[in-house]
Amino acid sequence: MKDFIWNVDTKILFGKDYLKDLPKEIKKYGDRVLITYGGGSIKKIGLYDEVVKILEKENIFYKELGGIEPNPRVESAREGVKIVRENDINFILAIGGGSVIDLSKLIAAATFVDADPWKIVIREEKIEKALPIGTILTLAATGSEMNGGGVITNPETKQKLGFGSPLVKPKFSILDPEITYSVNAKHTVAGVADIMSHTMENYFTLDKDTYLQNRMSEAILKTCIHYGPILLEEPENYEARANIMWASSWAINGLVKTGKDTNWSVHPMEHELSAFYDLTHGIGLAILTPRFLSYILDDDTVDMIRDFGINVFGIKPSDDKFQDAKKAIGALHAFFEQELHVPMTLEEVGIDDEHLEEMAKRAAENAGGSIKGVKELKEEDILEIYKASLF
Amino acid sequence: MKDFIWNVDTKILFGKDYLKDLPKEIKKYGDRVLITYGGGSIKKIGLYDEVVKILEKENIFYKELGGIEPNPRVESAREGVKIVRENDINFILAIGGGSVIDLSKLIAAATFVDADPWKIVIREEKIEKALPIGTILTLAATGSEMNGGGVITNPETKQKLGFGSPLVKPKFSILDPEITYSVNAKHTVAGVADIMSHTMENYFTLDKDTYLQNRMSEAILKTCIHYGPILLEEPENYEARANIMWASSWAINGLVKTGKDTNWSVHPMEHELSAFYDLTHGIGLAILTPRFLSYILDDDTVDMIRDFGINVFGIKPSDDKFQDAKKAIGALHAFFEQELHVPMTLEEVGIDDEHLEEMAKRAAENAGGSIKGVKELKEEDILEIYKASLF
Repeated sequence: MKDFIWNVDTKILFGKDYLKDLPKEIKKYGDRVLITYGGGSIKKIGLYDEVVKILEKENIFYKELGGIEPNPRVESAREGVKIVRENDINFILAIGGGSVIDLSKLIAAATFVDADPWKIVIREEKIEKALPIGTILTLAATGSEMNGGGVITNPETKQKLGFGSPLVKPKFSILDPEITYSVNAKHTVAGVADIMSHTMENYFTLDKDTYLQNRMSEAILKTCIHYGPILLEEPENYEARANIMWASSWAINGLVKTGKDTNWSVHPMEHELSAFYDLTHGIGLAILTPRFLSYILDDDTVDMIRDFGINVFGIKPSDDKFQDAKKAIGALHAFFEQELHVPMTLEEVGIDDEHLEEMAKRAAENAGGSIKGVKELKEEDILEIYKASLF
Repeated sequence: MKDFIWNVDTKILFGKDYLKDLPKEIKKYGDRVLITYGGGSIKKIGLYDEVVKILEKENIFYKELGGIEPNPRVESAREGVKIVRENDINFILAIGGGSVIDLSKLIAAATFVDADPWKIVIREEKIEKALPIGTILTLAATGSEMNGGGVITNPETKQKLGFGSPLVKPKFSILDPEITYSVNAKHTVAGVADIMSHTMENYFTLDKDTYLQNRMSEAILKTCIHYGPILLEEPENYEARANIMWASSWAINGLVKTGKDTNWSVHPMEHELSAFYDLTHGIGLAILTPRFLSYILDDDTVDMIRDFGINVFGIKPSDDKFQDAKKAIGALHAFFEQELHVPMTLEEVGIDDEHLEEMAKRAAENAGGSIKGVKELKEEDILEIYKASLF
């Protein structure tokens, strides 16, 4: 196990009854609030009105930035910084899923940088200070509610890149499973796939000595496999929503990667798909993951993939390790396709071979020449994985 | 899943190389340190000298309180408070296992109370303020390094009682698995049993809807079952020490009980054993747990115990649920006895029937009349469990 520091101090208020605590939690950090949100679903479900009423009752000043995109764009951060500066905002309340929270993190940091927010994402500017953030989560997926990372898209440069700092970790996050009742089937499924992918990116490493962390990863994966299909049948099943929501935070708050040096593989490949095509992130991850595992299956990785099959899908081990590993990959593919009803080819989501080479080139470039995950993936490897995902 | 707040903000520095960070971490909170420790094993392994050298190099003032007992006594807290007050101490550095850390928590809180420290334990005084605490963990067992609880013994009243507050949660804990190399077999095993017991106290509930948390609990239990026996063979196996150490924190930092109303059963019964006999806590827990499970096995609990056997010990499910549950209890007993070599009867640890009735009475009294865990245990139930544990 490698040395590590664990320092996750986001306060989680989980359940049906914590919106009332909002003013108390906000006032620990600020009194002039920027509310950020997305396409307006929070207005449809009445959450916006509820929050505004609570703030107004407590005389908490607020401005708002709505319309943040599903793959949030750097322009919105520019707009947010402007509102913050013009109104002496000292706290950001992000109401949404990962996109809204990620974008809010960039606003929080860019407020204190005398340059375009994109410079932070491409690491030309350092994060040395940030506004405090609180979140009300509306979608279980990215885990952004309990970590210091974010992913931002720049349409001008066709880049979708991650950034992060402990300084932008939310101070508190309110997780009410009922708020996710209205999430439609497509985004519910994409969220489950995203949670599973975060877990798998940390799980699939050649470390042999992070036993606890691997069993924790399997706990999260089993939870997704158990409740994902239930959510499609019963979108208002509280226990299913609650388990998936809590799993989303733990998949990527750092626990399952403690003691490991993890470099992700599938996310950087997927980011090009959604940068080029505005594809829903989780769907892209689901499509790519089984192809990625098939591509890297070799003597080094066979035990790792086989263990996954045995421990997560209950595959009965045989004498043929490779056969078992292939069964594991098949079980994952079948789960996405048959249980979650994910369109499992690029063709089905409207992606053909036109930009594959360009995307492979960019995926390698954005990862510093090649993706250095469990197996190094060069441009030509990435292209092969894209091609295997077409049909 | 019940509503809950998760707010665990202890910073964990895990690995071989974090002692050097001690001054930096301490100086965030204070500059006049009380070092607390136990029987002197930290001097034997050179840790004491190393810490003192580091503090002296940085000109950090310190006083010390050594000799804290394995079942820490309230007298030591009185002594600690005196040293704190006489020397304007503003930070406590606990170097030890759960006993030293628990006692340090009481000192930290009692410093600000104008009454005997015991009044805090029996809840006659409230914790409203506490000195900041940091820890260097020397024994993987109680999990005190990452939570706000402690257990204190009062020999005069023959009471061993828990107390707690978020205010006494350590600000940071240094977890170096190598420091635990010298822990002897008995205490290593007792530690593993303690970690398993913490996990099981939260795992064995009738909640049907905390799927993620139960799988997380199983991850911890499997880690103990995998590495416990390895530690007996290879006390300097880094990976085994590291996995057990990290498991100790997660067994009782609150994660596995999120969403549950848990009331512990075996700990309150064991506390009487170690209050009367100064028995090693983990050994008492190992002896009592299988008898407790056998005693509560009924139509309500059979599925819960059976799942434990299937998911943790890999028992093949049959048509006879009770048979499966009994196998699960047998597997746990056999694991303690044959793999960890725990003396599995009270007789073997020198406890006969002399005080059983008195201890049962007190266990019920100290729990407010009866133990209200997964099944209510009245005085007569506790007595039966003690009796079943004799031989």
